[in-house]
Amino acid sequence: MKLVCTQSDLSTHLSLTSRAVPSRPTHPVLANVLLQADAETNQVSLTAFDLSLGIRTSFSAEVLEPGAIALPAKLLNDIVSRLPEGEITLDDESSPTAENLPDYSGLIVTLTPKSGRYQVRAMGGEEFPELPVIENAQPMQFSATTLIEGLRGSLFATSADETKQVLTGVHLTVKQDTLEFAATDGHRLAVVETTNESPDASSEDSLEVTVPARALRELERMLAHNSESEEPVALYFDQGQVVFEWQHQRLTSRTLEGQYPAYHLLIPKQFQRELTLERKQLLSSLERIAVLADQKNNLVKVSVNGDAQEITLSVESQDVGSAMESMPAQISGEDIDIAFNIKYLMEGLKALPASEILMQMNTNLTPVIFTPLGGLKMTYLAMPVQLRN
Amino acid sequence: MKLVCTQSDLSTHLSLTSRAVPSRPTHPVLANVLLQADAETNQVSLTAFDLSLGIRTSFSAEVLEPGAIALPAKLLNDIVSRLPEGEITLDDESSPTAENLPDYSGLIVTLTPKSGRYQVRAMGGEEFPELPVIENAQPMQFSATTLIEGLRGSLFATSADETKQVLTGVHLTVKQDTLEFAATDGHRLAVVETTNESPDASSEDSLEVTVPARALRELERMLAHNSESEEPVALYFDQGQVVFEWQHQRLTSRTLEGQYPAYHLLIPKQFQRELTLERKQLLSSLERIAVLADQKNNLVKVSVNGDAQEITLSVESQDVGSAMESMPAQISGEDIDIAFNIKYLMEGLKALPASEILMQMNTNLTPVIFTPLGGLKMTYLAMPVQLRN
Repeated sequence: MKLVCTQSDLSTHLSLTSRAVPSRPTHPVLANVLLQADAETNQVSLTAFDLSLGIRTSFSAEVLEPGAIALPAKLLNDIVSRLPEGEITLDDESSPTAENLPDYSGLIVTLTPKSGRYQVRAMGGEEFPELPVIENAQPMQFSATTLIEGLRGSLFATSADETKQVLTGVHLTVKQDTLEFAATDGHRLAVVETTNESPDASSEDSLEVTVPARALRELERMLAHNSESEEPVALYFDQGQVVFEWQHQRLTSRTLEGQYPAYHLLIPKQFQRELTLERKQLLSSLERIAVLADQKNNLVKVSVNGDAQEITLSVESQDVGSAMESMPAQISGEDIDIAFNIKYLMEGLKALPASEILMQMNTNLTPVIFTPLGGLKMTYLAMPVQLRN
Repeated sequence: MKLVCTQSDLSTHLSLTSRAVPSRPTHPVLANVLLQADAETNQVSLTAFDLSLGIRTSFSAEVLEPGAIALPAKLLNDIVSRLPEGEITLDDESSPTAENLPDYSGLIVTLTPKSGRYQVRAMGGEEFPELPVIENAQPMQFSATTLIEGLRGSLFATSADETKQVLTGVHLTVKQDTLEFAATDGHRLAVVETTNESPDASSEDSLEVTVPARALRELERMLAHNSESEEPVALYFDQGQVVFEWQHQRLTSRTLEGQYPAYHLLIPKQFQRELTLERKQLLSSLERIAVLADQKNNLVKVSVNGDAQEITLSVESQDVGSAMESMPAQISGEDIDIAFNIKYLMEGLKALPASEILMQMNTNLTPVIFTPLGGLKMTYLAMPVQLRN
């Protein structure tokens, strides 16, 4: 393997792929990035894979000798990101000057930037596991913007608790003309419904799959980097695997097994009370009084006052103190005191993409719904917490 | 105590003083900031003190009732920094609305910003320890710029090892017309000599004191914030204490006991070899190859080649790989191979304030001196490390 590429290409693509390198690899080769150089197309591809999440990306280079080799991902990224701009030669032939190095029995790759020379131990490309491939499947196409919107509105509500299985992922439902994203950790639920702009997958009625949040966070990051592109993202899926592919990039992930909760049943259809609120003002007030929310239960009490057309937020921490703030609201329905985990309220409000929001509820023990007024079709459900005296 | 002040004044001064609040206070009252309100001058002062470092700062406010109270520093800072701009009332009378709060037996302070109300538990001002005061001492005066230059050129070379006593501080020597800063951790030494612009302390021949790095880091930060000010900084010192005072701010610190090393004796007077180098180029090369320096000994080998008028830097990490870079240099004296701890080289080069530097040495086992060409009078000494075969 021998090739010449630019420092910026190599550095950009190394840092993209290295997000899929496990920090504690179960097998030494997984700490590497697989470099494959194709002399016919003059393309170099980099692949990282932690056996669940895989990222492959490719770029143009002058390939002098084709080949495949596994290179230490973190080390290579640390070196290349610090090199000055310009051309770099990568070569896995041991150079004569390497002879005075101590006992390098294994493979050595030499990087030659403008000044200096870097040599790193490598492993054979054949030791690197294959990325899952989905064959003969008809892909669905989505715009990057659609995917980003859906992911931003749902990822934050996934569970971080690895024992909760399917709840650590986002549930995707593809229908005739919509793509729905849902995430819940058992205390709150976020649902985003986006339009499927290429409903050519009409042959399939409805497809559902739950994808680990970790893979989708990387997908969101990669797409956001690339957001000026108009090229659609192709989505393939098969038993246990999902693949997103666009331009020269591909992200693969295993899917999560298990029945996803029937979350639509949780969303009330009718409401006895309805409030219209300024989202940012509500969020700022919550962020301030959260400082005084008890660290144990994180409780905020929302008191709805229809006569005054205002709500009062209050928190109390036995040992420390208390805080309250009031703000105007358009209120219909009877007055009520209702309590929430303040963190769930703040996280939901951050994700709702609108300046005004609707808050709908029935009693102080049944699910409360937050929706943006205008814009994206998003539903955020928070379960109230019982207020003690 | 009752006063009205602006959110920005209170927030700025809380965050300044809170740097002296210990993260693990030995006594509960030390987790507080002492607020003193003077009705005659309409000044509010805030004081924090960890029994070694003390910071006091003051600002104007409308003081309705004078008084002193100790307020939880972190909590208050967290609240006030999030409040919107505008006036805030602070009051330690328990307000009627506080009555429905549970069992607040102690002191309560109520903060009333534009909207809302915050109540925090407080302690009596009399429980807060007094800041050390130095009386009847004639202060020395320094410009803030002088102090900042001296601190930037020395602080980084102090020892982080608390068992090393005096080496955890910067040694200040005040002479007739110079102020010298020195710091060493036993492996390297940094000395900065600045001009004492107000040599009115001529009565004293030479004064020496070692001040903990932690206090001086805060001093540097506070002065840098304030750097547009022309007002000099007054330095007082007395048995075991040093006080810096300017405008409305005061920083006190205990001094470190023990004999500071006679560091001037370590600096060679004559040299057999002399190199002139581009500082930034050398630093960038070191930063790149440092990625491959062995984590155990961090060794970089510098090979000086007079014929080629260049130096070659090389590192090697048994398990990982190796790296080398070359760069031009003006060289006088015989060729030599000499090794250093690469971190000490990089830290020294970062602090040397010049585009070109002079590197002077005798053998590969005796102290090597780095000085800036032009500008500040600074000396950086690094001990070479023995090269094994």
